[in-house]
Amino acid sequence: MKTSQPVSEQSRNRAESGDLQPRGIPTFEECYPHSNKEFREVPHAGSALRVPFRRVTLTNGEHFDLDDVSGPQGLDPRQGLNSVRTWAAAAPTHTQLSAARAGIVTEEMAFVAAREGRSNEFVREEVAAGRAVIPANRLHPELEPMIIGRKFRTKINANIGNSATHSSIAEEVEKLQWATMWGADAVMDLSTGNNIHETRGWIMRNSPVPIGTVPIYQALEKVDGDPAKLNIEVYLETLREQAEQGVDYFTVHAGVLLRYVPLTAQRLTGIVSRGGAIMAAWCLAHHKENFLYTEFRRICKLLREYDITFSLGDGLRPGSLADANDAAQLGELKTLGELTKIAWEEGVQVMIEGPGHVPLNLVKENVELELRDCYEAPFYTLGPLVTDVAPGYDHITSAIGAANIGWHGTAMLCYVTPKEHLGLPDRDDVKAGVMAYRIAAHAADVAKGLPGARDWDDALSKARFEFRWEDQFALALDPVTARAYHDATLPAESAKTAHFCSMCGPKFCSMRITDDIRKMAAEGMAEKSAEFQEQGGQIYV
Amino acid sequence: MKTSQPVSEQSRNRAESGDLQPRGIPTFEECYPHSNKEFREVPHAGSALRVPFRRVTLTNGEHFDLDDVSGPQGLDPRQGLNSVRTWAAAAPTHTQLSAARAGIVTEEMAFVAAREGRSNEFVREEVAAGRAVIPANRLHPELEPMIIGRKFRTKINANIGNSATHSSIAEEVEKLQWATMWGADAVMDLSTGNNIHETRGWIMRNSPVPIGTVPIYQALEKVDGDPAKLNIEVYLETLREQAEQGVDYFTVHAGVLLRYVPLTAQRLTGIVSRGGAIMAAWCLAHHKENFLYTEFRRICKLLREYDITFSLGDGLRPGSLADANDAAQLGELKTLGELTKIAWEEGVQVMIEGPGHVPLNLVKENVELELRDCYEAPFYTLGPLVTDVAPGYDHITSAIGAANIGWHGTAMLCYVTPKEHLGLPDRDDVKAGVMAYRIAAHAADVAKGLPGARDWDDALSKARFEFRWEDQFALALDPVTARAYHDATLPAESAKTAHFCSMCGPKFCSMRITDDIRKMAAEGMAEKSAEFQEQGGQIYV
Repeated sequence: MKTSQPVSEQSRNRAESGDLQPRGIPTFEECYPHSNKEFREVPHAGSALRVPFRRVTLTNGEHFDLDDVSGPQGLDPRQGLNSVRTWAAAAPTHTQLSAARAGIVTEEMAFVAAREGRSNEFVREEVAAGRAVIPANRLHPELEPMIIGRKFRTKINANIGNSATHSSIAEEVEKLQWATMWGADAVMDLSTGNNIHETRGWIMRNSPVPIGTVPIYQALEKVDGDPAKLNIEVYLETLREQAEQGVDYFTVHAGVLLRYVPLTAQRLTGIVSRGGAIMAAWCLAHHKENFLYTEFRRICKLLREYDITFSLGDGLRPGSLADANDAAQLGELKTLGELTKIAWEEGVQVMIEGPGHVPLNLVKENVELELRDCYEAPFYTLGPLVTDVAPGYDHITSAIGAANIGWHGTAMLCYVTPKEHLGLPDRDDVKAGVMAYRIAAHAADVAKGLPGARDWDDALSKARFEFRWEDQFALALDPVTARAYHDATLPAESAKTAHFCSMCGPKFCSMRITDDIRKMAAEGMAEKSAEFQEQGGQIYV
Repeated sequence: MKTSQPVSEQSRNRAESGDLQPRGIPTFEECYPHSNKEFREVPHAGSALRVPFRRVTLTNGEHFDLDDVSGPQGLDPRQGLNSVRTWAAAAPTHTQLSAARAGIVTEEMAFVAAREGRSNEFVREEVAAGRAVIPANRLHPELEPMIIGRKFRTKINANIGNSATHSSIAEEVEKLQWATMWGADAVMDLSTGNNIHETRGWIMRNSPVPIGTVPIYQALEKVDGDPAKLNIEVYLETLREQAEQGVDYFTVHAGVLLRYVPLTAQRLTGIVSRGGAIMAAWCLAHHKENFLYTEFRRICKLLREYDITFSLGDGLRPGSLADANDAAQLGELKTLGELTKIAWEEGVQVMIEGPGHVPLNLVKENVELELRDCYEAPFYTLGPLVTDVAPGYDHITSAIGAANIGWHGTAMLCYVTPKEHLGLPDRDDVKAGVMAYRIAAHAADVAKGLPGARDWDDALSKARFEFRWEDQFALALDPVTARAYHDATLPAESAKTAHFCSMCGPKFCSMRITDDIRKMAAEGMAEKSAEFQEQGGQIYV
């Protein structure tokens, strides 16, 4: 089985003729010098799982292994990736949740257990309890499974997608490749413009990571952009269409209840979620309860067929600090908890989406309320941004909030790019957003005490202290940029082994001095001090 | 009085002939369109204080005032700024601390009170208690006084300075101007290369903000780079030389005690503070106690003459997550507290420097211990970086720590640029560092509930919600970048008033929908719902 939903002949023809012509991004080797993509072979229930990781070879003969989500490299995007989950379509009776509850360790569980360095049983328990999800549509065979839960590595999600004003299919596939190259663990396709079905098809067939969508966008297109014309039938039809393409998680704004809508009227920034605004408009137009809420079990049953994961949308998330943690937001959160119970009854996995814009002192409360009201279902937050005043730098304003909310237990952080509030991200923006969020996620992992998380920091700091410049670059989150910044002041090859850098120059290097102190300490301070003075007290001999 | 320490004739000649030839940075008007630099006139004890601020004129007829630390504009750096503190040299008997204790409100206190929107008495009390400092050397007449204390706006410090391998005087003056243009409240000149006296002179004469230095760097140059040859006499001579130039605060590593040095030997990254390493080397070479500690009162008396503020250096700060909050760091902190008491006895103002590299979960403890051990003297921290793995992005890794530590009570945040650990920052890096830290500082101010801090966020969010694009740019931390990012996808002038942006395009704009909801709410939901349906349920009419 290559894929259950091949892209159409027409689309493939168009792809051949240019629309999907790849313009090329730097290769894995160019992005990660001194690294190799390797695989851990994990036999499981007759399948041979190949779990990817990246091995960094150091100049001191050691190596360091890092997570790798970049997927197979060098393939023609017009052909798509090869199937990984050869077993997936053959097991249509269970979802990850129902299997876990039944005591079954699926291939996906075994895969993520190897990926995270945890036991199969630990993974199964977390999935069974609903504290973790493995978004994996049976019809997304190219997927290298990924687990999202607060006892695992904090994940990051990158949003891509065209809009009515901008972008092409080729650009979106390249953004996907670029985002995963730099470490996006999941990607949402938020396209609202032309060719959204076709764009999504190419993204699915090229994605090694879980792909999410917000199906209400496409449903709205089907009713000519008029929210009042939406109904459960057109919505389910849209879900089916996207499910067949292999989408792994759906944002569903089922918590935007009619009674919450007036709570937003006096907000500084009202409703800022597109999906939330659409459903609010529907509720008002009909003066009826949100059909995503009233028909929620029908939606569950469809998702269950494919084992698609809910990402219950926070349609009433605050769009400014002024609106953070208000009655509308927290009311919707309680409803999302109610829906979580129903989805779990139906055997469907659930994540809960969170804000948004939140001042730093109110961040922790968001996690605490989510864990309480939504029964520890994984929290998946957008930022949050901790100030509204820095458009152009919102990858930073939000990385601050993201690191904090991740520390306190958010399982996946949805990135924000520098273009947030201003325009559609291009490839550079995608990388900037992914970098800021990998920093936030890793800082969260260290802070929450995830086993082994700090090893990476220690390996890099050791390389730094020992003036192994090449190793410092190779271990860096972004080796290319680290090296380029170093070379901006000291381009010579010899500087890569120099025991100083351009910050202090050779005479003042504190690390060099410390090295001497350490030698002294090792040999007994007093004796060494005497000897040091005999040599004329010169630190640099 | 223009300045008490004119730059030498020789230096001025060299400046005229090219060394200080300004290459030009964008003007205030170019950086802040729709803004004017204005002044609050504050009469005080016979002096007419002119307290600067920036007024942003909005398209709805309102205006919004923001802090301004950019100083006088358009002057020739080879001439320097005009004198502001005409009173300063005439009142040599008091320091800000001794005056405050004596119940005297100095011109500097009145100036910062107006700047911060607080009462004179509030400022006087904070200074008298040692909880805030106003670093203001009597011989820095160009200074627009600045207060640093946790009950005031969180300040940011930018480090500039050449090294043996790089930079020129003109470049350093431009970095000063560029840093203050974007909001650096204080600047440290950390030059260690050639012409450090002359470079410092030009920086002082062009600085409207407090300037700090680490005098041990120059003292070491005077003894040919040999730490063992340092002594209190050459150190005091160096302090005097820099004091006469007008330096406002000195980093003094008096807490690096002999007994703490062995505690660093087993660290992952030993001693990473240059000053700390130099003093540790001295202690070991002589097997004697740090002379900055034993002769601390002599140093106090010199600083008192000029009313220079101590920035008691954290010579043993951690250089990696692994070394955070260890015995060496916390031992030194206690000693800094002991020295704080002595400085206060001598009437000298004190700040306490802090780390460094600290995991997010250990950040708060740093502030708590500092407030306890150093009697609430203002804390002044470098970052801290919350992960070691992202060289090239350490403005972000450290802005995360800085926002958190600022929230918990750090008074001034020393910036980190993207080049940290890799090379000397250039002008772009300085701006990137300042931007990241202004975000951190403002996020901290909002989180700690500083009166009025969130008004800025609210003003920008209101502009955003009302599609006043020009106002959103004008109110942004960086108007130039915000506008450029917007224009990258929607360059047309008409888009500046469009009720949508390139993210969603016109059909899906949630803010537009919310606006309709608000109108409905205002007119009564039920009736409006009916009317809405009569109109065909079209949100966009």
